[in-house]
Formats: sequence, C-alpha cells, structure tokens
Amino acid sequence: MLTETEADALRDRCDRFLAGHGPVRAAEVLADIPPDTVVDRYGSGGVVAELEAEVAALLGKPAAVFLPSGIMAQQAALRVHADRRGRSTVLYHPTCHLAVHEDGALERVQRLLGRAVGDADRLLTVDDLEAVAEPPAALLLELPQREIGGQLPAWDDLVAQVAWARARGAAVHCDGARLWEASAGYDRPPAELAALFDTVYVSFYKGIGALAGCCLAGDEQTVAEVREWRRRLGGTLYGLWPAAASALTNLRKRLPLMPRYLEHTRAIAAALADVPGVTVVPDPPQAPMLHLLLDVPEAVLDERIRRVAERDRVWAFRGASPTGDPRVLRTELSIGDATLRLAPEEVAAMLRELVAG
Amino acid sequence: MLTETEADALRDRCDRFLAGHGPVRAAEVLADIPPDTVVDRYGSGGVVAELEAEVAALLGKPAAVFLPSGIMAQQAALRVHADRRGRSTVLYHPTCHLAVHEDGALERVQRLLGRAVGDADRLLTVDDLEAVAEPPAALLLELPQREIGGQLPAWDDLVAQVAWARARGAAVHCDGARLWEASAGYDRPPAELAALFDTVYVSFYKGIGALAGCCLAGDEQTVAEVREWRRRLGGTLYGLWPAAASALTNLRKRLPLMPRYLEHTRAIAAALADVPGVTVVPDPPQAPMLHLLLDVPEAVLDERIRRVAERDRVWAFRGASPTGDPRVLRTELSIGDATLRLAPEEVAAMLRELVAG
Repeated sequence: MLTETEADALRDRCDRFLAGHGPVRAAEVLADIPPDTVVDRYGSGGVVAELEAEVAALLGKPAAVFLPSGIMAQQAALRVHADRRGRSTVLYHPTCHLAVHEDGALERVQRLLGRAVGDADRLLTVDDLEAVAEPPAALLLELPQREIGGQLPAWDDLVAQVAWARARGAAVHCDGARLWEASAGYDRPPAELAALFDTVYVSFYKGIGALAGCCLAGDEQTVAEVREWRRRLGGTLYGLWPAAASALTNLRKRLPLMPRYLEHTRAIAAALADVPGVTVVPDPPQAPMLHLLLDVPEAVLDERIRRVAERDRVWAFRGASPTGDPRVLRTELSIGDATLRLAPEEVAAMLRELVAG
Repeated sequence: MLTETEADALRDRCDRFLAGHGPVRAAEVLADIPPDTVVDRYGSGGVVAELEAEVAALLGKPAAVFLPSGIMAQQAALRVHADRRGRSTVLYHPTCHLAVHEDGALERVQRLLGRAVGDADRLLTVDDLEAVAEPPAALLLELPQREIGGQLPAWDDLVAQVAWARARGAAVHCDGARLWEASAGYDRPPAELAALFDTVYVSFYKGIGALAGCCLAGDEQTVAEVREWRRRLGGTLYGLWPAAASALTNLRKRLPLMPRYLEHTRAIAAALADVPGVTVVPDPPQAPMLHLLLDVPEAVLDERIRRVAERDRVWAFRGASPTGDPRVLRTELSIGDATLRLAPEEVAAMLRELVAG
C-alpha cells in the first residue's frame, strides 16, 4: 500500500477526488465557523444548544446532547441503558463499530459485554436474534451497516428486530453514524427512522463533512444522564463551539443533498456494471456509499492510482483491504460533493484502468 | 448570584475585565488557528504531532500525547499506572480536581479508588502521606493547588513527597492544569518540575488561553498506552487540529508572559493589603492566581458588581462561593492579559468598592 506520506503528496497535486467531499483543508473548515458564533461554556449554551435543539427536532426526539465522538456517545448511552436494567450484554452485528474499531472499549472502559449476533457478511435478521436466550441490556443496530457496503435491512425486518428487543425489555439503540445516508436510502425522513429507537447517535463529520462531533438523541431523562457521562468521560470540553458551529453549517448544507448523493451512487454502480474485475457491494447501493471488490494485485493497483493521479490529477483512494479471496481487494467509497464533480462514466473509466491497466 | 444571562449581558457591555484574558470571543480564537494549518487524521500527524513534540521538549519528557480534556488525560494515565502495578488506589489532596469536579469519574468509569490525604484547607505534606499504610497505585500532586488559592509546596517538601511515593512503588503523577503558572511560581523551568514525575498533564485553555485540550507527557511506553486509552475513551477525534493549533499559538505567546502575570498578581495582593474586608489567599501569591475572601453579603456584592460594570465598563466576576464563615464569600482570580490592563491600584479601588460600597 502507498504510505500515508506518498498518498498525501500525490493527493495534494490533484484537483479532483473520487471520495466524499475531498480532502480536509483547514481554511475551508474554518470558513464554516461564523466569527460571530456564540460560544458555549463547558458544553452549555451558545451554538451547542442551538445545534442540540435543531438535531432533536430533526430526529423527532425530546432532547439531544452534543458530544466530541461517537465512541463516547454510544458508550454513554449503552451504559445508561445497562445500568437502568441491571443487565450488561449489548447485542450487535459482528462488524459494528464497537466490535471492530474501538479496541474493546465497551468491555475495558464500561465493563459491558458486547455479543455479536448473526453473520459478518450479511445483515442481522430477526432469526439471528431468536437464537439469543439471555436478556440483553440493549440491541444496537447500525444504519446502514457500513462494513458490508452500507446495506439497510428491509423496513419490516427492521421493525421486527426492534419489536424483538422491546419484548425482552432491552433498549434499542441506533448507531446512526450514517443515519442521514440511511434516511435517503429508505426515502423516509430521519425522524421516521429515529422513532423506532430509544436512543440515536448521529455523526457530523462523515456524510455531513463537518469537524468531529456527534449528537445523542433520546428522551429527556436518558439524555440528561448521557450528559453526566459525557462529563465523566472527559467530553464536556471547555469549548465545544467550533465543532458544533461546523456541524450546524454543514448539516443545513448537506442533509438536503443526501438524495442527490444516493442517486449519483446508483448511477456509478450502473456504470460499473460492465467493468470487468469490479464488483459493487451492495448492488444497487442502498445509501450514498458502496464497497468495490477489485480483482487486482495491490502493488499493481497502487501503481495505477499513482499514474492516474499524476496524469489526470484525479485522486482515487489509498488503502484497499484484503478479502477472503486472495485475488480480490476491497475498498469503500463514500459519495459526496467531490464525487458529484465526476460523471459516472468518468468513475467507471477510472476503475477500468485501475483494475485492467 | 447573578444569573449567567444577566452576567453575560453586563459583561458584554464592558471593555475591561478583571480576570484572565477576558471573555472568549469566537473570532479571536479562530484568528489564532492559521488557515494553512496541517490537519491531523484521528489525532495523528499535522499540527497535533508538532504540538506534542514541542510540549515533550518543553517538559523534558520522551513523549507527549494531545487529548481533548484533562479529565480524560488523567484518567488514562492513572489507569495505566494502576494496571501496571495491580493496584487501584490513587492518593490525592482532598480538593483535587478528581475529588471535587469529576462526579466520581475515577471510580465510576475506571473502577479506581481515590483516597484523599491531608486537610482540604492546607497543602499536602509528607507527614500526611506517612499516615497511609496501603500501597497506592499512584500519588497525584496538583501544582499549584488550585482550590486553596494556588499554593505551592516548598520545593524540598515536594521532592520528599515524590520520594515517599517512589519508595512504595507508586507512580507519581502531576496535575499540571496550571503547571506553566507553577513554573513561574517556583522560578524553575517547566522541565525541572516535570522531571519529578512519571507523568505530567498540562492544559492549554487556562493560563495559556487557547481552545480546550491538553497534553499528557511521560515515557514512550506510558504515552503509547495513554494513546490507546484516548481512543477507547472517545478522545481520538477525527480532527484534533483546531484545538492543537490554538494551543501552539497561545503556548508560544503566553508561556513567556507567566513571570509577568505573577509579578502583577503580587502587586495586586500588595495593593489589596490595606483594603478592609478583603483577604488575599495565599499572601503573597505563589502563582498567577489568588483567592479573595470578601466580607460582604452576596446580594450586596452582586449589586455593586452590576454598578461598577454599568458605570465604568469594567467587569469583575460572577460567582463568589460561600465559605465556612457565613459573612465571608470566596472568589478566584486568575491573572492574565486582561488583568494586566488594570493597574494594581485600580483593582484595589474596585475591590474596596465591591466590599465597602
């Protein structure tokens, strides 16, 4: 794989980018924070309160709290659900963020127990849940399921999974790191998704393209308790306003664009249909993201990414991961403002060159 | 006490301020972040790495890691010290931040045990420590001891306390939220203070006046483990660069000013010596901060703060706390750029009016 330094140097000479909204530039991020922003004091008041109110309304929940990160937000919410029930097991998909990206934080920090249910390579189903005997503290559902290309369960199945958990006295929590994207995928407003859950975490730096930060929404009591955990976990910073102001600007700007990102994602998938050696997962895409399976050796791929970058000043991506098939690599593609500037046919031509030479 | 809204409204009409560097204004904070700042990726590289290297060098430690908050930094460091020793008790002064401002985070999040040693109203001593039988995981020393006006132990006593802990196999950790201030107070460079400790936490938003954020410095292995805990605690944000850039700008600007702040603090204390009803704690001040004991009823004080603000456009402070003496209130004063713009005699005249009418 290209080193980060090599990739950065190549990328910095490009003027078009395949993924997301393109590279993060300090000047652009800072320009999204109004200089007359009303600052918070330790997370209270000002633009932080404004964002919390706007997100609570968007999600149709009584309250929301802004936190520095999703790891913190989800831990706090799950701790509240678990303490309230005197239970410690959280059920989740084998590839959920807590299972694969948090280095055992739920266990090591909160002393809660994650239990993976179902198969890593497909969506969780009610049948998978039926195999669980112990009474769980919470069921965590990630919408869309990122690590399998951003898949969404059929709405009826989602409703049935929620009902299964409720019938067992478990809380239902949504990992909505890409809830805005899931909303486009279901063609239902965010509040309709959020209504299924006791608590919902939403992120602002992925599809929304703001600085770091997130909100946790739910009922007043739960959110108040999450605020206490935010403090204890070291997240009630002296000033949270830069991230909150960036979130507010970009949420207003990009939430309305999610359907357009999704449409573009599907057009790209269609254009890739007849490119040999490229498989789109899922096909058609169910959110403004997809995974690409590429039949190409890593060193060859890297050399072609470099060639395209130097010749066309278009940056593809860094970092395709191995799959179970030694001939095949996987990469994730988020569709955002930068991707919109590339026609589906341009994306297909680029992928054709990356895979076939 | 004036409500926050009342106080903010009064303060916003003022152009001079008694405490610190004056109120936080978004535009000014943003101006400290260079638009060509090299961003980090999840806390790695860019201006975050630059700040970490500069702080490690300043403190004479092999490594430093930037974290969003001191609560997180100290928890992570203490957890590493405790796990390594198979011990769980942390010894600290009864008024240390963990004991009074963190809502039991050490116990609730980390399952470690805080044990207060000594008397809340005076500095910790070696004699206090000698009364402890159990082998502690760590001794936490706060320099200066904020809640008693920013007092510093005599250097020899500090050295003896550190030796006491080392002899018992305990780690020695410094709560250096105001280490830059303590360095001025001891008239010794920060590295000379840091050399006593295994780990040192330093803050950037108090005396340094930057956005939120801090560093934890120590040996390579410990700092690497703290980085892992930063991730687990939800502190390895997608972008930490705004806070790190703000810290770097303000550290370079204000660290050299600490001796001047201290000199001004002592001049203010001297000017207050003959103001009836005002007691300076400690006298003379030992760092660029002090506490004021005021013989005045709260409602009367508030009314006079309002009068001075409206008449002179000088903002005093909001929030004096009760003391054991029902006639006496306590307030904390940090000395910074805003205070420098007021002559000691002006401060004395203002306090005279606030207390005597």
